[in-house]
Amino acid sequence: MRTFRLVIACPDRVGIVAKVSNFLASHNGWITEASHHSDNHSGWFFMRHEIRADSLPFGIEAFREAFAPIAEEFSMDWRITDTAQKKRVVLMASRESHCLADLLHRWHSDELDCDIACVISNHDDLRSMVEWHGIPYYHVPVNPQDKQPAFAEVSRLVKQHEAEVVVLARYMQILPPALCSEYAHKVINIHHSFLPSFVGAKPYHQASMRGVKLIGATCHYVTEELDAGPIIEQDVVRVSHSDSIEDMVRFGRDVEKMVLARGLRYHLEDRVLVHGNKTVVF
Amino acid sequence: MRTFRLVIACPDRVGIVAKVSNFLASHNGWITEASHHSDNHSGWFFMRHEIRADSLPFGIEAFREAFAPIAEEFSMDWRITDTAQKKRVVLMASRESHCLADLLHRWHSDELDCDIACVISNHDDLRSMVEWHGIPYYHVPVNPQDKQPAFAEVSRLVKQHEAEVVVLARYMQILPPALCSEYAHKVINIHHSFLPSFVGAKPYHQASMRGVKLIGATCHYVTEELDAGPIIEQDVVRVSHSDSIEDMVRFGRDVEKMVLARGLRYHLEDRVLVHGNKTVVF
Amino acid sequence: MRTFRLVIACPDRVGIVAKVSNFLASHNGWITEASHHSDNHSGWFFMRHEIRADSLPFGIEAFREAFAPIAEEFSMDWRITDTAQKKRVVLMASRESHCLADLLHRWHSDELDCDIACVISNHDDLRSMVEWHGIPYYHVPVNPQDKQPAFAEVSRLVKQHEAEVVVLARYMQILPPALCSEYAHKVINIHHSFLPSFVGAKPYHQASMRGVKLIGATCHYVTEELDAGPIIEQDVVRVSHSDSIEDMVRFGRDVEKMVLARGLRYHLEDRVLVHGNKTVVF
Amino acid sequence: MRTFRLVIACPDRVGIVAKVSNFLASHNGWITEASHHSDNHSGWFFMRHEIRADSLPFGIEAFREAFAPIAEEFSMDWRITDTAQKKRVVLMASRESHCLADLLHRWHSDELDCDIACVISNHDDLRSMVEWHGIPYYHVPVNPQDKQPAFAEVSRLVKQHEAEVVVLARYMQILPPALCSEYAHKVINIHHSFLPSFVGAKPYHQASMRGVKLIGATCHYVTEELDAGPIIEQDVVRVSHSDSIEDMVRFGRDVEKMVLARGLRYHLEDRVLVHGNKTVVF
Repeated sequence: MRTFRLVIACPDRVGIVAKVSNFLASHNGWITEASHHSDNHSGWFFMRHEIRADSLPFGIEAFREAFAPIAEEFSMDWRITDTAQKKRVVLMASRESHCLADLLHRWHSDELDCDIACVISNHDDLRSMVEWHGIPYYHVPVNPQDKQPAFAEVSRLVKQHEAEVVVLARYMQILPPALCSEYAHKVINIHHSFLPSFVGAKPYHQASMRGVKLIGATCHYVTEELDAGPIIEQDVVRVSHSDSIEDMVRFGRDVEKMVLARGLRYHLEDRVLVHGNKTVVF
Repeated sequence: MRTFRLVIACPDRVGIVAKVSNFLASHNGWITEASHHSDNHSGWFFMRHEIRADSLPFGIEAFREAFAPIAEEFSMDWRITDTAQKKRVVLMASRESHCLADLLHRWHSDELDCDIACVISNHDDLRSMVEWHGIPYYHVPVNPQDKQPAFAEVSRLVKQHEAEVVVLARYMQILPPALCSEYAHKVINIHHSFLPSFVGAKPYHQASMRGVKLIGATCHYVTEELDAGPIIEQDVVRVSHSDSIEDMVRFGRDVEKMVLARGLRYHLEDRVLVHGNKTVVF
Repeated sequence: MRTFRLVIACPDRVGIVAKVSNFLASHNGWITEASHHSDNHSGWFFMRHEIRADSLPFGIEAFREAFAPIAEEFSMDWRITDTAQKKRVVLMASRESHCLADLLHRWHSDELDCDIACVISNHDDLRSMVEWHGIPYYHVPVNPQDKQPAFAEVSRLVKQHEAEVVVLARYMQILPPALCSEYAHKVINIHHSFLPSFVGAKPYHQASMRGVKLIGATCHYVTEELDAGPIIEQDVVRVSHSDSIEDMVRFGRDVEKMVLARGLRYHLEDRVLVHGNKTVVF
Repeated sequence: MRTFRLVIACPDRVGIVAKVSNFLASHNGWITEASHHSDNHSGWFFMRHEIRADSLPFGIEAFREAFAPIAEEFSMDWRITDTAQKKRVVLMASRESHCLADLLHRWHSDELDCDIACVISNHDDLRSMVEWHGIPYYHVPVNPQDKQPAFAEVSRLVKQHEAEVVVLARYMQILPPALCSEYAHKVINIHHSFLPSFVGAKPYHQASMRGVKLIGATCHYVTEELDAGPIIEQDVVRVSHSDSIEDMVRFGRDVEKMVLARGLRYHLEDRVLVHGNKTVVF
């Protein structure tokens, strides 16, 4: 069922819901899902509606025009999306296949509603798996002494494929700041720890050294500061003294792929609203 | 902060949200929390608003009157409650203290927003604990050969204390059908299994016999059919071959008290809407 | 690291551990993992040792011979396996790919230590995915009016491929009793509910009707009675009123594949000891 | 059932289990529970046996003497305890009652096998609750300008009551280093975050600022470095954008009390072996 998704953030005040729901009702809009959140701390209001496209008398452009005055009146930071327009996703990976294979399978079995434009990797290992899915694979090696050319090529490919979302499916390279800024809130990373614990390299080794009893994974938007961007989703799994680092890595893979898949799904469904360094996930 | 809670269930159609939010906005109502749910299967719509009492120009009676025409127009099953009016709760227990002690402590430390009118038990064991909290304790023994007099007395006490909610905190006796009907959706039970598994007596023994790897607890409204009422909340805990039935009982106590406390809290906050044999928990 | 796994079940009495550990120590056996369990209820004792193969002066056949007198003395039900001998697995699937794809990927990335002899399916949908992994795919359609020929063919293929384990990765057909008995404790099924709730067909529909707040999956050995065999592993995921049956199916897929992968791994590592209708999982 | 608990840590080598189990078998010792762990990383071996006291021909002193040569041969760090000798526990609290009330109830209902010698608090708020349990309550106010006299009094009380374990049940004061060293691995703290995230003050505020999707609690031994001691147990609970700091505090209370109760139980049952800054929890 085709829907429009109306996503709004604005300073909180009386009458926002009335205005928006009146607008929708006056055009006979059939709301299939509605979520609201008032943040007392920041004084902001967040809202997401899913509306059956076939219940409305107009398309998305006319909707946008008709709604603009309301948006202006309430100083809304807003967007409307059409589920008929699938988002274009570029996946980036390195050598480890678990997150990539998981996302590809979900896409292949119609669980993830998006177009996968291509896969970019700094290694060639996963080419055959990707190409079996009918998706172009670009091998862009990264020279540790001079990473700039590789990232220029990555940037070019992302642009060429008109990516709306870039997913770092265990890409293991730190993106340059310029790319992070250009695609703010559009680059999704999976970090293999329960952030803010164990930022940076080898988090399972860090976790083992500290003797924690749970390990986790964090899906977040990439910002210039490493592993510090807005968190979309997290989860953990129990470990014990009997688990070696290799066991942790293995358990961790399952958490990583689940958390990334959930985080990406929320993003694709326009459920994630970023405010400051935090997210509202409807 | 004093709020009014407006809770609505009605057949779904376009315009409900607009009508209700207009009503609230036209009276300057400051919504602090709003939840909606459209059930495609049943075609019903569910809605809960929490509104700051001091933002409205009238009290709860005037609200009720003013809202009545809208409720009628949409054939709403609805209620409005005032957080200034604490719900009166009667707790019932037997010999096991864990659920009762947990609820009493939550109430005593102002976590549970209600008045506890009294505790009724078929044993006298927990009197001192209850009375330390300043709550009346009634010992109503149940004669296994003739339970009727005991339940008549229970019924009288529940009425006398003007209970709005009755909580079976491991009461271990089956209430007579008449009492269940009279207090439909007002008697909350904790069953020590993950329903619908292991209905009836000794669920941990049943669980151990079946060799399950997780055990659970279920908080539900009591209906005439044993352990078959609408489920409010459930949770589980992992067990293994190394856990004896006694271990399961011990782990289970923690799940039981958490699940009951959550379920009761949802009820007290008017978050539970019953439809058929299922609940919406906002 | 190559290890031998010594797995023992016997009536409990004083001296078993001493006898076994003496035997191992006297041959200089380096124990890398040891697990014991005394079941008070049944009076049985269970034990699993993992021993470095290169620490022992003999191979598995000589071990077997040398240990036999001890096994006899204590009436042991026992086995010894060699990690150098990978278990041969036959996977069976129907149309849904999530469990199969998950197991294939774990095998392909060396997480599951086994040989996958072939995949048998009553549909041809998943052939290409399986064949990409270099694994033979047999399409054995099942005629609902006369299933016998199909199961005769399945039986023949299982034998021909010398399967030591058969995994029903959402096969959706009930195996005939003869096959269940012949491969007792060697056929692993994933049932898409938290057993013993919702036995049989369409468990997510049953779960939705009952209004449960958690759904689950169960990995168990197949016996003649449907969904009643010894449970190896279970897990659950939280759902709410806002989740449709389709959502439950989707959440369920993730639980199913995780639970099946864990259960199969335990089996492949000789961690599962069946006693009566229950399992010890070391 | 009275048992002896034999707890051993020593450098790993072939023959430890054989030697120990021979010793036990030669005295007819009936082992009710046995746990082993080889740590590949450190090269240490850990072991815990629970043995029925009535199966042995001698008491704990004679056991100690008889076992000493074996302990010496293998350079064991070891202890043997007798469940007939309950451990003496001193509880310390501040104003918040949830952890204290939880532990007191578990003790009162015979779930925690220990003697509670007294409660020490820097406030007088919880006196009545403690005294209802028949436990002495000491109010030792801490002067922020000069904490030394208070800690001298705490130290004196702990000694006077012959505490074997000190539990900081949300005590909210940092113990002086001398006390930490004197009672190394005997002072148990509950920290209200998932360590190593959010060390120090107001962890729920820190968690809210970072926008994490799970909050947790950590039970650990107190060392001189704040919140950095060996972790015994941890757990988490899911939160979302809709949860205020107050909600997090409330959810957190339930996790804190569960994690502390489990951690203390493990300690009381001699299940925790500290090695470096990590624990083995059998």
